[in-house]
Amino acid sequence: MSLLTVGSVAFDAIETPFGKTDKIVGGAATYIALSASYFTQKNRMVAVVGGDFPQAMIETFHNHNINTEGLEIVKEGKTFFWSGRYHADMNSRDTLDTQLNVFEHFDPTIPESYQDTHYLMLGNMIPALQAKTLSLLTNRPKFVMLDTMNLWIDIALDDLKDIISKVDCVTINDEEARMLTGEYSLRKAARKVMEMGPSTLIIKKGEHGALLFKDDRIFFCPALPLEDVFDPTGAGDTFAGGFIGYLAKTDDLSFENMKRAIIYGSAMASFCVEKFGTERILNLTETEIDNRVMEFVQLASFEIN
Amino acid sequence: MSLLTVGSVAFDAIETPFGKTDKIVGGAATYIALSASYFTQKNRMVAVVGGDFPQAMIETFHNHNINTEGLEIVKEGKTFFWSGRYHADMNSRDTLDTQLNVFEHFDPTIPESYQDTHYLMLGNMIPALQAKTLSLLTNRPKFVMLDTMNLWIDIALDDLKDIISKVDCVTINDEEARMLTGEYSLRKAARKVMEMGPSTLIIKKGEHGALLFKDDRIFFCPALPLEDVFDPTGAGDTFAGGFIGYLAKTDDLSFENMKRAIIYGSAMASFCVEKFGTERILNLTETEIDNRVMEFVQLASFEIN
Repeated sequence: MSLLTVGSVAFDAIETPFGKTDKIVGGAATYIALSASYFTQKNRMVAVVGGDFPQAMIETFHNHNINTEGLEIVKEGKTFFWSGRYHADMNSRDTLDTQLNVFEHFDPTIPESYQDTHYLMLGNMIPALQAKTLSLLTNRPKFVMLDTMNLWIDIALDDLKDIISKVDCVTINDEEARMLTGEYSLRKAARKVMEMGPSTLIIKKGEHGALLFKDDRIFFCPALPLEDVFDPTGAGDTFAGGFIGYLAKTDDLSFENMKRAIIYGSAMASFCVEKFGTERILNLTETEIDNRVMEFVQLASFEIN
Repeated sequence: MSLLTVGSVAFDAIETPFGKTDKIVGGAATYIALSASYFTQKNRMVAVVGGDFPQAMIETFHNHNINTEGLEIVKEGKTFFWSGRYHADMNSRDTLDTQLNVFEHFDPTIPESYQDTHYLMLGNMIPALQAKTLSLLTNRPKFVMLDTMNLWIDIALDDLKDIISKVDCVTINDEEARMLTGEYSLRKAARKVMEMGPSTLIIKKGEHGALLFKDDRIFFCPALPLEDVFDPTGAGDTFAGGFIGYLAKTDDLSFENMKRAIIYGSAMASFCVEKFGTERILNLTETEIDNRVMEFVQLASFEIN
């Protein structure tokens, strides 16, 4: 099935205790689409970049079967730039610089050829733009998933609640779930988010795994304990991309299949953090992914007599 | 198989956002032995209390098949007392008062009838006393497990490393594992702890579950997402008691059986936090425990095609 990803395509400059990068290509839509491309062949992208965006990366997208007809290039503009520094524990970071550039005036449009989109991933961005993107699709996609962040809970709560009410699945982290609902218990928080509309909710807990809620069922997906986390940038987006990519590939929205999808998403995220930026998720093989998934099986399986 | 638990038996006064208690019976050995008593019938306890300790609680121990021949009663002394207040997130707490009382001069002795002990649980206390207890058992038990805390890493590191080198299994939380080894990565920290001696290590992550390391294998045990955590006091000890109690019952130290044991331990801990102190783990039925374990099965099981 076809998958459309909407969100930021950006330059990142990253510092971790292990080193630092110059400007490298990042952004939510980049990680989501690359990750999903390992599962579904019909990938589309709606995003905006400046004239400074490297043609080589656009070719990389094409090599991953990501159609870029919806990638607007503002020749006279500059690409969204973010710079950050991770703390020693890798769980928190300081933003050193944010230059929205062409992303500030991003106004998503949907190429006619994207109108038959079956799966839609609304990457983290201004909630009103997420809503606009959905409204531009004449036929509502079969499955719409949304990612967001604490900033929008702070400054655009009504718009956020509006788009949440229109999607099938929300993915947020534990702190955001608590912020959005005022509930510390994730089980209570999940219920409140789902009362806003979505039938599926993923609460990401970083190194502690993720919880999948669908209707009244819960699945706990562990995170692989890694020797080192080299760079967490993009891990959440890579996770979401693996999840929705697997769903688009299998076109099966049952709870059992969503469990598999979240394991694949976690496996993809576990690769992402092993190197800077997108480096590790640019050239994965099917065997590598299958082997990583088997590590999750071994990590989590047990039998009660 | 017989299980001997050594550690504190105490009075606790607890405040949580849900309420507060007067002095109630707590202490590591109390929680461990009560939890284990649901699995193994031959429970023994080495601990010390004062003349103020209620006879009714000793009868409760007996009703749970906990032999108290090793529970020393210092008639003229007072029982160890701890008082604490939990913060709103339940993950951190302030100690309001600690009165060691008779525990300050605790000098463990082993009744002759305990010398055939097969499983030994060294509850959290001064490492030198843990070592002394082990040395007093003429026949080394088949399986020796140790719990400890950050305080001993700070003030008795050499003694702690000495006893760690002599046990089969250590259980500590994630922060303590990092403190003890200087490694942030839990996988690296685990390797360093196991290089000190034990072939099995459990790293507890509270609401995020626990990791079981045995030789070169890893198992991730989830924590049940609960509606509310009413009182976390004793959860770690209840977890340890369920784990070693299940091992003592089954007398099977294979990795597969340890996985089951840690699931049972987590199930017991999930009961413990539902009410104040030991209240919830005093009157559990086998059916309640089995049903709770089935919740873990549902929470964690998935199938890759």
